[in-house]
Formats: sequence, C-alpha cells, structure tokens
Amino acid sequence: MKKTKLKTILKKIFLKYGLSNSHSSICSNALINAELVGAYGHGLSRLKMYCDRIKKKLINPKPKIKIKNISSSIVHIDANNSIGFVAADIGIKKAIQCAKKTGIGLVAIKNSGHYGLSGYYAEKAVKKNLITMIYTNAPPAIPPHGGLKSLFGTNPICFGSPTNSKIPFILDTSISKINRGKIRVAARNNKKIPAGVALDKNGKPTTNAKKALEGVQLPIAGYRGSGLAWMVDILSGVLTGGNHAGRVKDPFDDFSGPQNIGHLIITFKSNLFAKNFKKRIKDNIKTIKRIPKIKGTKKILYPGENKFSRFKKNSNKDILINKNIYSDIKSLLKN
Amino acid sequence: MKKTKLKTILKKIFLKYGLSNSHSSICSNALINAELVGAYGHGLSRLKMYCDRIKKKLINPKPKIKIKNISSSIVHIDANNSIGFVAADIGIKKAIQCAKKTGIGLVAIKNSGHYGLSGYYAEKAVKKNLITMIYTNAPPAIPPHGGLKSLFGTNPICFGSPTNSKIPFILDTSISKINRGKIRVAARNNKKIPAGVALDKNGKPTTNAKKALEGVQLPIAGYRGSGLAWMVDILSGVLTGGNHAGRVKDPFDDFSGPQNIGHLIITFKSNLFAKNFKKRIKDNIKTIKRIPKIKGTKKILYPGENKFSRFKKNSNKDILINKNIYSDIKSLLKN
Repeated sequence: MKKTKLKTILKKIFLKYGLSNSHSSICSNALINAELVGAYGHGLSRLKMYCDRIKKKLINPKPKIKIKNISSSIVHIDANNSIGFVAADIGIKKAIQCAKKTGIGLVAIKNSGHYGLSGYYAEKAVKKNLITMIYTNAPPAIPPHGGLKSLFGTNPICFGSPTNSKIPFILDTSISKINRGKIRVAARNNKKIPAGVALDKNGKPTTNAKKALEGVQLPIAGYRGSGLAWMVDILSGVLTGGNHAGRVKDPFDDFSGPQNIGHLIITFKSNLFAKNFKKRIKDNIKTIKRIPKIKGTKKILYPGENKFSRFKKNSNKDILINKNIYSDIKSLLKN
Repeated sequence: MKKTKLKTILKKIFLKYGLSNSHSSICSNALINAELVGAYGHGLSRLKMYCDRIKKKLINPKPKIKIKNISSSIVHIDANNSIGFVAADIGIKKAIQCAKKTGIGLVAIKNSGHYGLSGYYAEKAVKKNLITMIYTNAPPAIPPHGGLKSLFGTNPICFGSPTNSKIPFILDTSISKINRGKIRVAARNNKKIPAGVALDKNGKPTTNAKKALEGVQLPIAGYRGSGLAWMVDILSGVLTGGNHAGRVKDPFDDFSGPQNIGHLIITFKSNLFAKNFKKRIKDNIKTIKRIPKIKGTKKILYPGENKFSRFKKNSNKDILINKNIYSDIKSLLKN
C-alpha cells in the first residue's frame, strides 16, 4: 500500500475513535515510521490494540494534557491517559524548547501509554543538534536478578547524538534479549523465537512465542541487565509519578485500567562544552570505522545506521500489509 | 593495617609527590574506600602507577583547575591534568551545588585522569537526595562490534538514586564483561581470569590475564554493549573535550602523555516531579524484593547493597595489604 494511502486510512481510523485531527496525524506518522524502519512490533500490529483500549476508555482520545513548567529547563507533563504517541510528541517538543533556551531540558511524563520507538522521538531532538536520552517503562517482561516473576519492562535505554551527517547516532536498546514486540509478532504469526531469550511460566527455556509471553524474558548481561532495567523503572516510573514495580498493564491483555506509563527525557546542546563538537564527532566516527575488522564484517556501523538504511530502502516502496493486519484495518474502518 | 594508619601513610606519599594537603586527603580517602568496598582493582594496586605518572609529569600534582560556569545549571571543568580523584571531587561538588540551586546540574570535565569508582562520587550526590548519572571513558579495552582492535574503554555506566534507607541504590556497571582492574590484579598475582571475557591479541579466547591485557575484552550483550560503550565515549569524551575514539592512554603502560580522560555528571532533585518520591522508591524496592525467588536465591538485592555490606564488614577490620602493595608503599615512602 502507498504510504499516503495508508496515512489517510490510519487517520480515518483514529478520527473515528475520537482523536483530534492533529493527534490522529501524530499517531499515524509514528506507526508508519515503525513500519518503514522495520520495527513491526511497534507498528501496525498494535493498531487494533490502541483502538480497543480507546473503546474501553483506557486510552483517552481527548486528553486534557497538563504541562507544568517547573523551571525554564524542567517540565512535568500529566498526559491524562492520552495515547503514548501524543504524550511523547509533546514531551520531546518541550525538551527541545528547554534545551534551546537554557542549554538543557529535563521532561518527565506520567499517565502516558505505549509510544512506540524511543528512537523516533530522540531523532527529532538530535536533528536540532541536541544530545538526547530517553527512558520509558513498559509492562512486566523481565524478572529482577534472582526473581521468578516478570516485573520490569523491556525498559529501553535510548541515546541520540548528532553526527555531522544525515544519519544520526541513535542507540535504542531494550534491556531484554529480544524486543517484546518481536515476540508478539511471532506469536501472532505462529513463528518460533530464538533459543535463550525467554523462559515459560514454569521457568523452563522456550522457543514458543506464546509461552514466552506467559513466562519471563531474559535480560541482557544477567545481573547488570537487571540493574539497568531497575534504573529505567526508577527514572521513568518512580520519579515521574508513573506506574512502576511491575504495575504497568500489558496493553494487549489487561483491560483493568489505563497503563500510566512514565517517560523521562533529557536533552542538552551538543556544543555546550566543546565548540567544535561537529568536527569531534565526525573524527570519532571516522577513527572507529577505520580499525581492522573481524572476518565477514565489511563495515563497522554505529547505532542507527542500519535503521536508517531500512528506512531509506522502504521509503521508496509500498508498505507491505499482512493478512492479519489487513483484516484489523478493514474491521476498524467498519465498526 | 588500621585505616587511620593507612591514611597517614598514603597522605604522606601524595604530599611527597607534590600534592596539596587537601588533594592528598581526597586521593587517600578514595583509595581506602575502594579497598573497603572490595574494588581492589581501583584501590592500592594503582598507587604506584599514580606516583609514577606524577614523577613523569603526566599527572599534575599542582593543577590550576579552571571552572567555567556556563549557567547556574551547567559547568565545564578543565582539570589541567590533575589526578582524577581531585577532578571528580570538584565535579561532583559542582553538580550537587547546581542541582540544589536550580533542580538540575550538568557538569563536564576534561583533562582529567582515572578517578577510581564512579559509584563513590554518585554516592555523595545521592546522599543529598539527588538522582545521579556519571559517565567516564577509559583506556581501550573493548572493540566496537565487528572490530578486531580495542578502542572503547570499559566505560562504566553509573546511576544512583536515594532509597529512603541508609543504603543507596548505586548501579555502577562496566560495559566489559569483567572490570579491567580485576584483570590487572589477576595479572599482578599470576591468577587466571574467567573464560569468555577476553580474547588475546590474535583474537583467540584466553584465561591468561596478561594475554587478555594485550588483547581485547569482550563487551556485555554483544552489539548492544558495544553501542553503550560508544555512547559513553561520546558523552564523556567527544562532548567534554576529553580524549575519545581509543586515544585515552593506558595509565600503567603508556607514558607518552597525560590521559585527558573526560567525565560527565548529570544530577537532579529526586522530588522534582513526585513530591512523595521517598515513599514511592521505598514501595518500589519493597514490592520488587517480595516476588518469588529462584532456587538458591535468598534475597533480591538492588545494585549497591552488596557493596554496602562489604564496606560495613570491612570498615571494622584492619585493611589487608598484600606483599606486592606493601613493597610499593615501602619504596614510595623511600624514594
């Protein structure tokens, strides 16, 4: 399907579910971006879920978002259970404004929901020459080290930096061995997941995606990964006023209340300390790319390059829509 | 040896090497703390190295440290090749001041050196009820993903948070599978290192500590660990004006110039957004500790608890000084 056609359809759906024109546009763009970068677990596979949650009044299609300017650098946003895309869009805009004005911006958001890819928002700030860090929590997927119950989300750590080229440095890494979205897509399509990334509900290793969703995902790097996930839970949950300690509801399975996800955004000017930052980052990347490579590696890539390539490649093509999603779209347009 | 006696001896050595009384005290305290928390790779095993570098004029014992207040929240420090402990001590104090005054502090330091444990400084800010993030780069130890040459340091990520108890949450995790300091201690004592943490200079797995120091250490979590190490290189090196892209000199082996390590500190008030932060973090930790545990795990511990226990246990005992270090101390007092 053509991007423009898909956007028209998505907007139509969000408008039908009560979102404003501009909010519908924000959501549609975020979903299409996820498809274009190949992050299918954050794209159209979630469309029906968002609509279901709006219908059940767990996502507020007409949120009264409260923005509290604590200082010219610090902002607290109560997203009033808006769809996550809208909350994150406002959050990153405020963070950019603060950093442009004072050098640094710190924005905390509560009462939000799943917003897709952190890197999508980081990119917006990086394009304004800002260093950007974004933290968000997520429904339970990973146990703390030594624990037998999922409690932390996949809790991504996102970091972005300008590179003096059109391809930004965007590290957007989940703390789980694989992304929960990918397991969802596998479950939906009856595909297996790699070995060693998840345990079933009895604590046994599994490659069955559905069983993995009922069990626990494994963190990267053992106790260190568990510590990083805990850090993200504090930054995005405890600190912001969002849910934490395993209380973020799974958006697909748990309709007992809104998610109240929290996000934390830190941005600052890249040339605050070294005025020749652009030259320095260019030299950094060039030097690192030049070192000897292991057999089979053609190029050393920085985080974000692969995603950018996929985006570029896919932007010139029609967006492939699988059967399940096509039927979701058809029924959402009807109902 | 008694702590007080050790401190007197260490101060005497640093004074002899030209440091001021207060700087000698700062350095001695940091080294003793590393011994007390059991981080031997950051303690007395480095004493001779610091003195050697002072003697060779690579560490400046009488630094003229320049502090530039960019705003009431943002500070840039040129440490003038001071010993890292002194630069970090000033850095964390400035970061605390900024956060206390404006809610947030961002401090970048360049022309510094190895400062021991990031967590030691984070603790100082956490005690003032601040959330703290500290990044520092280090001599090449880890190759970028796909590379055959060490280039990134062990580049620790440090995060601290108040807990409403006397034991702070301090995550201080190196991006290498094991700490380079531990490999140094093993090499010094002719001990083996665990399998799977390092390759020799030909790219072959090794458990020989000396060969590992000549080769490359492996990052946690493959390409994700490599991305995190790259992030730390940008934050602490490219951004601050410090060395980066593999140019930080190994303090033990490379006497061709000063290290010019960079550090970046971010601090902010923990109660900026949720006024009941203390209650929230207490609830977070309590909830997480209560979940079912895997066989053999008695308690779920948060990052920092183990270190705190070691500190408490060791604080009541004499500090054990091994033969090699004892001979270092004797010769440093003489020369």
